[in-house]
Amino acid sequence: MSLQFSQIKETCLYVKDLDATAAFYQGGLGLPVIGRVEGRHIFFRAGSSVLLCFIAAATRQETNLPPHYATGRQHIAFECLPGEYEAWKHKLRQAHIDIIHEASWNKGRFRSCYFHDPDGHVLEIVEPGMWGP
Amino acid sequence: MSLQFSQIKETCLYVKDLDATAAFYQGGLGLPVIGRVEGRHIFFRAGSSVLLCFIAAATRQETNLPPHYATGRQHIAFECLPGEYEAWKHKLRQAHIDIIHEASWNKGRFRSCYFHDPDGHVLEIVEPGMWGP
Repeated sequence: MSLQFSQIKETCLYVKDLDATAAFYQGGLGLPVIGRVEGRHIFFRAGSSVLLCFIAAATRQETNLPPHYATGRQHIAFECLPGEYEAWKHKLRQAHIDIIHEASWNKGRFRSCYFHDPDGHVLEIVEPGMWGP
Repeated sequence: MSLQFSQIKETCLYVKDLDATAAFYQGGLGLPVIGRVEGRHIFFRAGSSVLLCFIAAATRQETNLPPHYATGRQHIAFECLPGEYEAWKHKLRQAHIDIIHEASWNKGRFRSCYFHDPDGHVLEIVEPGMWGP
């Protein structure tokens, strides 16, 4: 039987400060907060995905669920809606989020831009279609 | 202007061995490989998402793109298609992938199961709908 996933539903980042994380992802990027537990996590909706930001020191000690944690500067990419790439760049500027790099892919057909979150994670916004069907 | 992302398109894990990663994600879970560069990365399609597995020692030294890396046991969750949760558990068993935990959510309406990849990352398969609309 050939089974397929519909998508990666939960993507996780490990963060230090929930207030700073909320200010950036909710205040800056406009992602709705869908859950928060002080000292442990804050969760955001990102279209059909959820972004789960955990305090690694807490989830490393998990006993009810399998422990998980990470350190470093992780990378994730958000996909924007068709035609809204430039509007996102404008939104980043208005939120005083610096674009650290911009790239083009597939012979210039698709653009993407990179920026950091408060923990130094490397975020990217990509135009739809750049990963194919 | 209220902008929304369609989804998180790229989710990244940091891995040690591309062959072991290929054997697990392609051989075990059946994810199609969409890119591979020896010593640097292997990429998989996972429904409408892509799973990018990087050798952190390589991407940490990146110069053309912003460097990124992580160590630890990261967590991600795949969403299965409606009605296929039990078939996925069967597929895991057939691939000799141990389910380390199973959980139910939203008063038992949704199930999920957890397992490890070769790097100890904590993977989960969730039933559709568990994160709401």
